[in-house]
Amino acid sequence: MPSIRRIDLNCDLGEGFGVYRPAADAELIPLITSANIACGFHAGDASVMRETVRLCAMHHVAVGAHPGLPDLQGFGRRNMAITPQEAYDWTLYQLGALSAFTMAEGVRLHHVKPHGALYNMAAKDARLADAIAEAIVRFDRSLVLYGLAGSELIEAGRRKGLRTASEVFADRAYCSDGSLAPRTMAGAVLEREEDVVRQVMGMVMEGAVRSIEGATVPIQADTLCIHGDTPQAPQLAKRIGQELQKAGVLVQAP
Amino acid sequence: MPSIRRIDLNCDLGEGFGVYRPAADAELIPLITSANIACGFHAGDASVMRETVRLCAMHHVAVGAHPGLPDLQGFGRRNMAITPQEAYDWTLYQLGALSAFTMAEGVRLHHVKPHGALYNMAAKDARLADAIAEAIVRFDRSLVLYGLAGSELIEAGRRKGLRTASEVFADRAYCSDGSLAPRTMAGAVLEREEDVVRQVMGMVMEGAVRSIEGATVPIQADTLCIHGDTPQAPQLAKRIGQELQKAGVLVQAP
Amino acid sequence: MPSIRRIDLNCDLGEGFGVYRPAADAELIPLITSANIACGFHAGDASVMRETVRLCAMHHVAVGAHPGLPDLQGFGRRNMAITPQEAYDWTLYQLGALSAFTMAEGVRLHHVKPHGALYNMAAKDARLADAIAEAIVRFDRSLVLYGLAGSELIEAGRRKGLRTASEVFADRAYCSDGSLAPRTMAGAVLEREEDVVRQVMGMVMEGAVRSIEGATVPIQADTLCIHGDTPQAPQLAKRIGQELQKAGVLVQAP
Amino acid sequence: MPSIRRIDLNCDLGEGFGVYRPAADAELIPLITSANIACGFHAGDASVMRETVRLCAMHHVAVGAHPGLPDLQGFGRRNMAITPQEAYDWTLYQLGALSAFTMAEGVRLHHVKPHGALYNMAAKDARLADAIAEAIVRFDRSLVLYGLAGSELIEAGRRKGLRTASEVFADRAYCSDGSLAPRTMAGAVLEREEDVVRQVMGMVMEGAVRSIEGATVPIQADTLCIHGDTPQAPQLAKRIGQELQKAGVLVQAP
Repeated sequence: MPSIRRIDLNCDLGEGFGVYRPAADAELIPLITSANIACGFHAGDASVMRETVRLCAMHHVAVGAHPGLPDLQGFGRRNMAITPQEAYDWTLYQLGALSAFTMAEGVRLHHVKPHGALYNMAAKDARLADAIAEAIVRFDRSLVLYGLAGSELIEAGRRKGLRTASEVFADRAYCSDGSLAPRTMAGAVLEREEDVVRQVMGMVMEGAVRSIEGATVPIQADTLCIHGDTPQAPQLAKRIGQELQKAGVLVQAP
Repeated sequence: MPSIRRIDLNCDLGEGFGVYRPAADAELIPLITSANIACGFHAGDASVMRETVRLCAMHHVAVGAHPGLPDLQGFGRRNMAITPQEAYDWTLYQLGALSAFTMAEGVRLHHVKPHGALYNMAAKDARLADAIAEAIVRFDRSLVLYGLAGSELIEAGRRKGLRTASEVFADRAYCSDGSLAPRTMAGAVLEREEDVVRQVMGMVMEGAVRSIEGATVPIQADTLCIHGDTPQAPQLAKRIGQELQKAGVLVQAP
Repeated sequence: MPSIRRIDLNCDLGEGFGVYRPAADAELIPLITSANIACGFHAGDASVMRETVRLCAMHHVAVGAHPGLPDLQGFGRRNMAITPQEAYDWTLYQLGALSAFTMAEGVRLHHVKPHGALYNMAAKDARLADAIAEAIVRFDRSLVLYGLAGSELIEAGRRKGLRTASEVFADRAYCSDGSLAPRTMAGAVLEREEDVVRQVMGMVMEGAVRSIEGATVPIQADTLCIHGDTPQAPQLAKRIGQELQKAGVLVQAP
Repeated sequence: MPSIRRIDLNCDLGEGFGVYRPAADAELIPLITSANIACGFHAGDASVMRETVRLCAMHHVAVGAHPGLPDLQGFGRRNMAITPQEAYDWTLYQLGALSAFTMAEGVRLHHVKPHGALYNMAAKDARLADAIAEAIVRFDRSLVLYGLAGSELIEAGRRKGLRTASEVFADRAYCSDGSLAPRTMAGAVLEREEDVVRQVMGMVMEGAVRSIEGATVPIQADTLCIHGDTPQAPQLAKRIGQELQKAGVLVQAP
């Protein structure tokens, strides 16, 4: 008898700053099961963090830290030549900052998902990945580490004894080696809702994705990232949630 | 029979940033009993915070958060027209950030002392003081709140049920109403070591200070601030510690 | 024979930062005659500045610098206790930064209008106003200084021999002393388009405004500020421009 | 008959920030012929810039802009994955900001030398080098571009028709291909004053340097960088100046 299939729907939230409040956070939060909240380095400030944690608490959405590189102007998307020590220090700082707001709002910090360039660099660089995992271990070893499925970051989490959640993307095409197709490649972003839904259902129900080259690639899907920065995001999140429930998948935070 | 007199010697530490490492922190830490560590807003960064917490842990110095205004260029010394909500949010953020490093280094966060303009504004403005105290209560109500003796900040801490430590200054002249003489006033800063020592001993042994106008003013002295930014700071800290011990005063964190 | 009446329509532009691009700059630029471009302190970054200067150049809109306080998180709206020296230094820095983009795009820098809290503080504090005017004089004495009509900033500009433009607001109520009614006062912001248009026409055609207390107050209107941060801004700008042209007013930069 | 040999002695200055004033700028300025002044991105702020330009003006030292990456915490030393457009925008912004202070102090901006990681990246990446050179051309084509001798930056300057100055280092060992020996290599930094002086005199008098592998490598030396961040910097600068004058070399800005 097959075990029940589960998936988490996560979304990057709280990515405003000061007067800038770009995203439809309030609309998305009821549709997801876990939130990655910016911690003030690539986006977010103390006030945005408080508001976002509070909103998540109201909707029983699991709250995670979303630490990034200290590059507000570049939204944490530019690679920087940082040391493992810096990755450790910056992760720790941001974890602590966000945890103060979860504490004040009476909820538990649940997970950590690095942002942007930090996420991508840690996916490939075992030393950065280890440094991030080490910061989490020293801060609170009960936190779940979210990372790209098959990445060095997931490996580092396992080495350190952390619970990990392998992340997959609904609207990004995959290469046959399991990596994301670079955005510069034609077809790298799935644009039709049907294609997105088909990819999601394949990853969740069969543990596999059809690569951009046409191969069937096994993939572990513990948590699915919903990109919040498109206008259609709420609609897509709703549709995916419905399809998963129809298929009997338990949608919940890991 | 009189109870044993006690005093804490505190110092603002970790106030470097990036390549800038101005102060003699390593020299001062062995001479004090509690440290107020900058949290990245007015000074300090994640790496400086880690190093400073570690140094304090080695020397069994009580670690406190030293939250400031988000004004690195002004070192948090310029008054800003902020709301109580901002004071709350910024205190919480910085408390959390520092606490991540105490957690990682296996020490407890012990106290909170606002920095510079935030300290001064909260000394006079009950709404800002309440907001800061509320942030501490919601984060960890066992923390000690350091504030200017006789200030609104101390009052706010008491209202909220926090333990408080009334802070006095070794080298600053006081007015007859118990406030600090403004730096622009002649004689506002005590420059002779003997005057500093006499003022300290009077505050600790007799609970009083001789004001700049010549009056004897009662003052509560739970913790004494050693300014770390003069070259003579280590020598002065040493001298004060010796005089206090000679007089049978117990020098320890509250 | 009465001389031809003239007015400039100005708007604060280029107030995005990094990935944040809040305003409808491209829609507004064709409707105005001068633009105040953020210079990176309260908003704006080098890339936004380049794009905005270029857009203004294409539409023959006069380009001005819009220097603010170094408070990105607060959008330069929080008063800060700064010295005249700091006001001078920060104005000069931002003037220079923007002028590099006008030079590169082959247009002339035309004016300077301080932003937010800097504008408001300089309206009342003659020493700050003098410092800002002095920075302009030393940088380029042909620049026009925009300031609140009747303010210390306009006075300072005159004292220093600068050309000045007295600014009035289309949608803000005035007190009988000529100052802006504080936003906390009921009726401080005109919400009906007809009221806005009536106020504008009165200021331009008769040199007077009806105060919130009901008095007729003389006011000099050289330039009219269009707030760009409401969705109706383009429509309102268009309407005001049409009414002014119907009345035979020459709409152009000073 | 040989032409007169010339060399410029340059130094990175104005690299403090806020309360942090690390270097002995006042001591160094009388000993050099050109100064590269930080422009607020990697170090420096508007007040430091004003003071440093003023000091240079008093001592008739040529003033240059020293634009860096927007990474104050990392002092602009960390490589960042930036686009040529960003390199162009950031160079232009910083050039303009510094030029406002030269204008206000009545001196001419003389040159541009990128800082740290921007300098190193532009030495190897022709697209970044072109972007920087293009920003200079559009701002003021009379400025001299300082870059590593033999680098892409010097090439880009030549392509764009700028005057260039090939920079050499007094205390850094060179590889046989003319590049600087990486700091991680043993012997990469010359520590004995005699070695430094010998290397300088060889580069200036013979146009050659003895590489770390022992080869004689031709090198163009238009300007010599004096590192200001060691306590011995003023003494070393003085010694080098004396040796050059003894040898009849004209020490002056290009």
